[in-house]
Amino acid sequence: MLDFAEQPHKRKNLLTGDYILVSPHRSKRPWQGQVEDLAPDNRPQYDPKCYLCPGNVRADGTQNPDYKDSFVFVNDFSALLEETSVEQFNEGNLLIAESERGICKVISFSPRHDLTLPQMDLPAIKAVVDLWQKEFKELAAKEWIKYIQIFENKGSIMGCSNPHPHGQIWAESSLPVEIEKETTQQKAYFKQHGRTLLQDYVAIELKKDERIIIDNEHFVALVPFWAAWPYETMIISKRPVPSVLAFSEVEKEDFARTLRELTIRYDNIFKTSFPYSAGMHQSPVNSGEYPEWHWHMHFYPPLLRSATVKKFMVGYEMLATPQRDITPEQAANTLKQQSTIHYKG
Amino acid sequence: MLDFAEQPHKRKNLLTGDYILVSPHRSKRPWQGQVEDLAPDNRPQYDPKCYLCPGNVRADGTQNPDYKDSFVFVNDFSALLEETSVEQFNEGNLLIAESERGICKVISFSPRHDLTLPQMDLPAIKAVVDLWQKEFKELAAKEWIKYIQIFENKGSIMGCSNPHPHGQIWAESSLPVEIEKETTQQKAYFKQHGRTLLQDYVAIELKKDERIIIDNEHFVALVPFWAAWPYETMIISKRPVPSVLAFSEVEKEDFARTLRELTIRYDNIFKTSFPYSAGMHQSPVNSGEYPEWHWHMHFYPPLLRSATVKKFMVGYEMLATPQRDITPEQAANTLKQQSTIHYKG
Ligand SMILES: O=P(O)(O)O[C@H]1O[C@H](CO)[C@@H](O)[C@H](O)[C@H]1O
Ligand SMILES: O=P(O)(O)O[C@H]1O[C@H](CO)[C@@H](O)[C@H](O)[C@H]1O
Repeated sequence: MLDFAEQPHKRKNLLTGDYILVSPHRSKRPWQGQVEDLAPDNRPQYDPKCYLCPGNVRADGTQNPDYKDSFVFVNDFSALLEETSVEQFNEGNLLIAESERGICKVISFSPRHDLTLPQMDLPAIKAVVDLWQKEFKELAAKEWIKYIQIFENKGSIMGCSNPHPHGQIWAESSLPVEIEKETTQQKAYFKQHGRTLLQDYVAIELKKDERIIIDNEHFVALVPFWAAWPYETMIISKRPVPSVLAFSEVEKEDFARTLRELTIRYDNIFKTSFPYSAGMHQSPVNSGEYPEWHWHMHFYPPLLRSATVKKFMVGYEMLATPQRDITPEQAANTLKQQSTIHYKG
Repeated sequence: MLDFAEQPHKRKNLLTGDYILVSPHRSKRPWQGQVEDLAPDNRPQYDPKCYLCPGNVRADGTQNPDYKDSFVFVNDFSALLEETSVEQFNEGNLLIAESERGICKVISFSPRHDLTLPQMDLPAIKAVVDLWQKEFKELAAKEWIKYIQIFENKGSIMGCSNPHPHGQIWAESSLPVEIEKETTQQKAYFKQHGRTLLQDYVAIELKKDERIIIDNEHFVALVPFWAAWPYETMIISKRPVPSVLAFSEVEKEDFARTLRELTIRYDNIFKTSFPYSAGMHQSPVNSGEYPEWHWHMHFYPPLLRSATVKKFMVGYEMLATPQRDITPEQAANTLKQQSTIHYKG
């Protein structure tokens, strides 16, 4: 019998088909390495130098409106550009490239410079969900767009260069690597079972109740069995829908509630603004039907031991297999024990 | 015609089959985000508190010998354990796991606490290469070991918790994720062409001479066409051999020379001890013949703009596709322009 809490083992990620390595006995390893800066956070409600605050002028000279909830605009330093011609490059099948067309947007979650998602109230988070849905719809209306990635980098440790609460949307003309993988895995499962992979996965997780953090009418938040990051989680819709576009009003409210509770629990673990990269995975658009695609949102937070000591996905992880120390079950337990009231009150 | 220096585009990684995204126009993006600590480096030649220095006592009570060049021992906090029974776990094909057996070793590259690979002389680096070969041979002699990952995490930014120059070896009972991918890709190519993928890839790179950094009798160092990290490189043996085991004396000397020159060039870019995770990819062992497997070594360095500003592989990169700003050709140019004499003299 495999002892998850004691034996080094591998677990299979159903969504990618790849394995991760778990070293449960290793959590006692002492740490003498890099410690992150914990800058005191005394942000003002409004920062005259912030390019996201209402009324301020951005890099390209545009003035932000005096917005009241959330606000979206095209990234002034977009990694993808709408004006890109379609080109191919192939030398001897060894050097292979093609142009990629896209649109990169920034979404400010709140006019308040000093907040983060877990500190916002439910109606404010619901307004962000509404905007995500609206943006998804508008971008999907462009025939050439095949995939829309909605995400947030939270915290400087996750490459976020402005603490004003905000996320991003990158929409593009082909399918990203991770989406290709998840499509393949979900398609194979759906073909065989006639149900979505995540439908059956959620069912078994609810039955076992070892990794579930939140279980409300329309959503489940859990530490996936195959989590690679120490406190990695997923939010999964109970109804198998391909994208945020399908969410009803009550689902959007429940989603906002789930987001709020999960991020509050995160902040409470180490009494810090818990950094992460998070984003929705959704079905491709403008490329036929995807009955196998089941909407979900990943949270990849780097912290491991404290507010200042993270897990490094480096040598072995980059060259071989992602590796974790504490087990997903231990992480789920810690998350479950947290209060649903933010530590800052 | 695809303009690599101007148009956003995707490039195919031949070894994994996955794409990366290049945003060449984005290098002008201003940076207001996290800046790494640049602690002054005044390490002594010998540190009484370092668990790698000669004669010191380690966590498990063992005393290090008074070694003269390199020194190897089993990691006191191994992620993999030799004493692991073979176990399987499967619930409804949804929760899938299996135990993993392994051995984790640490290799001190030098008795000198204050050095790094690029600061060591050729005979000292050659001694490290000799030890890698010896260790590979000894580990491969254990029937149950199927793969041997030799690597180094250099710099605190890469999770290295002790600045004493050292690397690691993780040997294990099954194939890591990245090795599975590279085996699949190399096998398909070999089957079709009767030559290794990297043999033909090196040939086209030498002909084009746009990404080659070092070209000596037995090795090539280049920025791969599909590099994801800003200054990512690969060392590839000209002779298609499956592992370090096959290297002759002259090849080992040439490899040491290549390692030294490449890491000196790295340090010279930003006049800093250039952090990276690096490691060899080699054929599996004890599992038949792998004529398609061609030895190579990857370098994944995080720095982008300066000694203190790195590239963050976060939100979009984790959820969708790895993305880079400067082109591989620009990075190769910068590396080529560096002196082969270390900036510290
Ligand atoms: O074994 P070390 O050097 O203490 O640890 C370092 O390398 C390991 C292998 O890449 C990683 O799992 C750790 O996160 C990292 O801190
Ligand atoms: O676009 P931003 O927020 O300036 O940049 C951040 O997110 C991007 C998308 O994940 C990354 O490519 C950058 O490395 C990171 O710093």
